Amino acid sequence: MRIYPVIMCGGAGTRLWPVSVQAHPKQFHRLVTDKTVFQDTVQRLEGDDFAPPIIISNQRYAGLIREQLAEIGVEPSAVILEPMARNTAAVAAVAARHIAENDPDGLALLLPSDHFIGQPDVFVAAVLEAARTAKSGFITTFGIKPDRPETGFGYIQSGAVLGGALCEVSEFKEKPNLETAMKYIADPAFSWNAGIFLFPASLMISELESLAPDILDASTAALEAASEMDGNILLDPECFAAVRSTSVDYAVMENTSRAAIYAPLDCQWNDIGTWAMISAIRQADTANSPINIGAEGCTVLCDDAHVVALVGVKDLCVVVEGGRVLITAKDSTQDVGKVVAALRDSGRIDLF
Amino acid sequence: MRIYPVIMCGGAGTRLWPVSVQAHPKQFHRLVTDKTVFQDTVQRLEGDDFAPPIIISNQRYAGLIREQLAEIGVEPSAVILEPMARNTAAVAAVAARHIAENDPDGLALLLPSDHFIGQPDVFVAAVLEAARTAKSGFITTFGIKPDRPETGFGYIQSGAVLGGALCEVSEFKEKPNLETAMKYIADPAFSWNAGIFLFPASLMISELESLAPDILDASTAALEAASEMDGNILLDPECFAAVRSTSVDYAVMENTSRAAIYAPLDCQWNDIGTWAMISAIRQADTANSPINIGAEGCTVLCDDAHVVALVGVKDLCVVVEGGRVLITAKDSTQDVGKVVAALRDSGRIDLF
Repeated sequence: MRIYPVIMCGGAGTRLWPVSVQAHPKQFHRLVTDKTVFQDTVQRLEGDDFAPPIIISNQRYAGLIREQLAEIGVEPSAVILEPMARNTAAVAAVAARHIAENDPDGLALLLPSDHFIGQPDVFVAAVLEAARTAKSGFITTFGIKPDRPETGFGYIQSGAVLGGALCEVSEFKEKPNLETAMKYIADPAFSWNAGIFLFPASLMISELESLAPDILDASTAALEAASEMDGNILLDPECFAAVRSTSVDYAVMENTSRAAIYAPLDCQWNDIGTWAMISAIRQADTANSPINIGAEGCTVLCDDAHVVALVGVKDLCVVVEGGRVLITAKDSTQDVGKVVAALRDSGRIDLF
Repeated sequence: MRIYPVIMCGGAGTRLWPVSVQAHPKQFHRLVTDKTVFQDTVQRLEGDDFAPPIIISNQRYAGLIREQLAEIGVEPSAVILEPMARNTAAVAAVAARHIAENDPDGLALLLPSDHFIGQPDVFVAAVLEAARTAKSGFITTFGIKPDRPETGFGYIQSGAVLGGALCEVSEFKEKPNLETAMKYIADPAFSWNAGIFLFPASLMISELESLAPDILDASTAALEAASEMDGNILLDPECFAAVRSTSVDYAVMENTSRAAIYAPLDCQWNDIGTWAMISAIRQADTANSPINIGAEGCTVLCDDAHVVALVGVKDLCVVVEGGRVLITAKDSTQDVGKVVAALRDSGRIDLF
């Protein structure tokens, strides 16, 4: 049994502007630890059970990926570059085809590169337990144990127990309103959908064949017509553009009879989606701490070229990066993406 | 009758950090209009009744003074440089000696360079009316009509009417508490002490002779031993260091029988002492306006090298200048000077 981490790192992370910008998004920054979020994700999945990772990303990040892998001394199984984004179903198809071709019994662990996990050992143990079930014919997702009535995530309802912490999936749930989220948090059958999937490559291919054959065919064509670029695999732009853009949840998980869930997974998972999230888990950065005159409850991230002084303010996140200064109320950090939208609308493409 | 504006521009303006820094303080910045505060002060006092100004400042600002005078085409009567600050009594003594030597009947209008006056015509008319009285042997101060119960200024109580808007001074009052300030604002006899004085040079000399002869003697010695430096008069450092440091209010005004007050003066005077003050009178700066996502009541002053985004915040002043970022609650702008004190304490002299 070999598990191939398939690390998706093509996202933009606009809510973490101004550090996260299109040319250098969230996952490639040192946001929580002294490694980048991408590097932490790669290093979380090392050891005998894991093959070197397969990196799937937008082609514009090829340089960053190679540079950051080299920094941590990792030689990947492959770096597969997308000419444009086509959501996760296409990634699952491409990854499954790529793995099956090289290792017909290989398992894929499809996961985002931009999450933080405080207890990686717990996470890896869950993956290995799930791998034993996955081998026997399941696509396993991982349900994070909620610690708050979060309305920003989808939820998964667990069904009949398959063995250990693995259950059948009863139902995928869209992002709930607060009332529903309060109910979910009181019911141990509900957990957060973290977008992490473990599956035999061959099973994903057969499920796509029956549930979304257009996606499988177009993705396969893009892979077969791919070109080599600086040691990376560049998916054929014309073929890949034709792939229907949808998530693996919609295309496969909600319709397959082979869905399983490992839940609850309690590994201090955090999607570090907002500055408020990051300020909650980041260690205090004393090196470049602000001047504080009567300020309370504020988090400041500031590059070396600036000094920030806070006077009499409360509960702010302040982020200074180059010429870009963000000042947000801690309870408004969800809205930071709108700054990027405003900059885009006004044509200031140098700023995001 | 010739009135010599004596413009004091040696102050630091720490509450307007980070724009106002030791190397380039408040009065030499364009804070309200398209001229610097110093330039506006100079140009407010032009016309037949006024001699070219006498500028008195710390020697470190000689370059800025000459540059900013040249920009507005003003050739001063003199630029007198202090090697160190010795408060306003010393300035009054030096100015009086300098004027009396060149124009025995000259009047001095001693005033700070770092205030804004929205109605300069009203101010000048008041000065000219006061000059008629001053000539007959008074040191006239100007009482600003209060528009709020300000606890940050001293007050002056007017006494018997001398003629027109001029009265005897009944009493100088220290900065009051709020309760007292509320009483003052309800009583037209009380006005703000703006630190502006009009007097015949010869009268100031004779009053200093009787009330503070040590200050007069030491200041005179510093002027007599002064050296010429790039067309400016540099007071002798050793002599000037020996001058007792106190205000003209304490040294002269509170003890002389020749004190008069012009009050109430209602000329939209503003000491622009804090960012809250400046935000109240500055025209909106649309050129470099911030990205605003649900923010309210905020004022942003930002140099051309930065863009500021505000998300969900309220009632802040944000000032970005080079590598220095100030974020202050509007009701805390009085405390901004403490930032400079903190920077000084930590030895970061490049930052203030």
